[in-house]
Amino acid sequence: MSGIEAFDAVDLIRAKRDGHELDTPEIGWLVDAYTRGYVADEQMSAMTMAIFLNGMSRREIRDLTMAMIASGERMDFGGLGKPTSDKHSTGGVGDKITLPLMPLVASFGVAVPQLSGRGLGHTGGTLDKLESIPGWRADLTNEEMFAQLREVGGVICAAGSGLAPADKKLYALRDITGTVEAIPLIASSIMSKKIAEGTGALVLDVKFGSGAFLQDIDRSRELARTMVELGEDAGVATSALITNMNVPLGLTIGNANEVRESVEVLAGGGPADVRELTIALAREMLELAGVRDADVEAALDDGRAMDSWRAFVVAQGGDPDAAMPVAKETHTVVAERDGVLVEQQALPFGIAAWRLGAGRARKEDPVHHAAGIDLHAKPGDVVRKGEPLFTLLADEPARFARALDAVEGAYRIGEPGEPVLDGGPLIADRITR
Amino acid sequence: MSGIEAFDAVDLIRAKRDGHELDTPEIGWLVDAYTRGYVADEQMSAMTMAIFLNGMSRREIRDLTMAMIASGERMDFGGLGKPTSDKHSTGGVGDKITLPLMPLVASFGVAVPQLSGRGLGHTGGTLDKLESIPGWRADLTNEEMFAQLREVGGVICAAGSGLAPADKKLYALRDITGTVEAIPLIASSIMSKKIAEGTGALVLDVKFGSGAFLQDIDRSRELARTMVELGEDAGVATSALITNMNVPLGLTIGNANEVRESVEVLAGGGPADVRELTIALAREMLELAGVRDADVEAALDDGRAMDSWRAFVVAQGGDPDAAMPVAKETHTVVAERDGVLVEQQALPFGIAAWRLGAGRARKEDPVHHAAGIDLHAKPGDVVRKGEPLFTLLADEPARFARALDAVEGAYRIGEPGEPVLDGGPLIADRITR
Repeated sequence: MSGIEAFDAVDLIRAKRDGHELDTPEIGWLVDAYTRGYVADEQMSAMTMAIFLNGMSRREIRDLTMAMIASGERMDFGGLGKPTSDKHSTGGVGDKITLPLMPLVASFGVAVPQLSGRGLGHTGGTLDKLESIPGWRADLTNEEMFAQLREVGGVICAAGSGLAPADKKLYALRDITGTVEAIPLIASSIMSKKIAEGTGALVLDVKFGSGAFLQDIDRSRELARTMVELGEDAGVATSALITNMNVPLGLTIGNANEVRESVEVLAGGGPADVRELTIALAREMLELAGVRDADVEAALDDGRAMDSWRAFVVAQGGDPDAAMPVAKETHTVVAERDGVLVEQQALPFGIAAWRLGAGRARKEDPVHHAAGIDLHAKPGDVVRKGEPLFTLLADEPARFARALDAVEGAYRIGEPGEPVLDGGPLIADRITR
Repeated sequence: MSGIEAFDAVDLIRAKRDGHELDTPEIGWLVDAYTRGYVADEQMSAMTMAIFLNGMSRREIRDLTMAMIASGERMDFGGLGKPTSDKHSTGGVGDKITLPLMPLVASFGVAVPQLSGRGLGHTGGTLDKLESIPGWRADLTNEEMFAQLREVGGVICAAGSGLAPADKKLYALRDITGTVEAIPLIASSIMSKKIAEGTGALVLDVKFGSGAFLQDIDRSRELARTMVELGEDAGVATSALITNMNVPLGLTIGNANEVRESVEVLAGGGPADVRELTIALAREMLELAGVRDADVEAALDDGRAMDSWRAFVVAQGGDPDAAMPVAKETHTVVAERDGVLVEQQALPFGIAAWRLGAGRARKEDPVHHAAGIDLHAKPGDVVRKGEPLFTLLADEPARFARALDAVEGAYRIGEPGEPVLDGGPLIADRITR
């Protein structure tokens, strides 16, 4: 608090409560004092509810973001000798895109310094998925990270506690106080970590639809615009794709099975939607980093992206050829009639995979790496009676019943010609400043 | 939680955040779970901010009040053999009305079971004032209280922790999270304690103006209407007076000096405004208790109220004839010119008295019983240059400077004929169902 003007937390809460803007020193003090414990959790939760209901101006959101960055260390890859570019997704069901995307971009000489998280609730975590590879480890020192970016080009590792500690504390609070979905708080939380991470360019994959945490596309656009401005204002070249999360991405939801599908994409195959989104995001990441007109499809098809993946896995202690964990128990659901799969809702399938053990309910819980769901059909596919629709994967058969409850009514076989309820194209919009 | 449906605190917060009503079982669960510690302070403070900003229906406020009553014990004076009537003031500067009012009402055979509090901030507490009487004690057992009501007729004592413990916990939280001034929360807080206290009738003195915690008269009326309905719904005969708190009540602000002034009123004298409000509230209390057309002025003038006071003081261990504490230091401010005192703002004088030691900043702090302010002129009085306007009383001379800062610009001598800024009549309105 040395040299910083002190404010009274109750005064600031009352100001936001009454619809006033907080000024830059007030926001700086609040975040610093909260991080240090001078402002109590009870006070911050009243403040976040007031922010939720009364909003924040663009200037306030920028101040909040910068204050959260200032609460910790800020990395700098200026000495790396190559451009850096990263991607952040707001989270979805079956969203393994980081896995093929990172090595693909790195294969073009652009370093990807991805600091990632573990999953909580129905959206999976990139680190959880990668940890199903035998030997692979998420914890790197800053020095290891720097060396790997120089030599291999891409890194995916756990964010240390040194980056934006204010955000870490605030996010845990928002989670239990019903204030997660506020755009000023989401935007500042994501962008404080990504700006502190030190990337030169950033592409945001902002999801909408039933499996996204903002269902409404207009709110997703508003979040994307807010984050793009925050990034650009902080000197990070930033753009966003607005993408559809009404249907699970790809044919796998889980951990080991999502790695397997990612490797298929890196081998030039894989489901069309996963490949499409990987290519679109790679083009954005490369363009923002100054690599124009890169033939990213060729890099997937000719093995360059796969080589980059294998080098990345080895660099973090993993064995790219090791056998992946396999579920002890499976339960396959088949089509009860001939027809067309017209509906497959992302959220219930995400919840089912979570209940099977692929995700965790509490931070301390382990995940079951082999648990999840393999989909055998996607919306629009013709199915015949008795053909498998999806397979539940678990280590304990007792988990199947609650997973089946979750997906009850979440998929439907309709008549040929009936409209498919997939919420439209995968990539709905692109946002730049 | 036995037999009660369990809810999820985050779901209830989100419902209130999104403008929905909470139903009766939800509110009952929330208050019970908060009292027992299953719902965290952080969650309750987000909830109170959502209530502050999105409001509550009359039905929700009633449910909240009843749930807070159900969190503790509820007293019952049915076996007393006489009617009971009580008064609650929302708090003001120089508000010692309970002191003459309670014995006045008791002198008509109506028992007054007043459970009172200590002061915090610039509004004084009735118990603090009474504790300046040597020997007087605020802590009575329920049995002592009952016996005193039967024998003496009136009691003023500290509320035990058994009454509405949910309110106690919630009030402490609201105090630090900027959610004190929400009408649903104020109304349920006051009325849960008063209904649990077991009084048969209740008169509310709801203040408005600069020295009140709701400044706006319309909000005070809304609070009064809400509380009158809550009382009537719970079977307590309830009415409210809306009274002016732009100017300090009477000529004393403090503790011992307010007792002295109260005794003057009980002797048939005292400042006109203190006498007027005491009489008006006594009439309300008596009428609600079924005593119609009582000549309360006569009881003040003929010594009956004073006898009742002396019996009350003695019953609680005090000596009504003992010398009261006297301030070690005084500082008198005189008129700088001839004229008329046209302004004397309640809030700054309340803050000055607090800074002199009459009030406390934290619950643990002691009060200085002799500290405070004696006023020598009231708005409308003619003053002559050099005549005393008010005297600051303190035990430490170092306190005078900050008290003088507080009242700077808060009083003004104008020309004869200039309008007096006292905010209108003392009693502005009367609210019944």
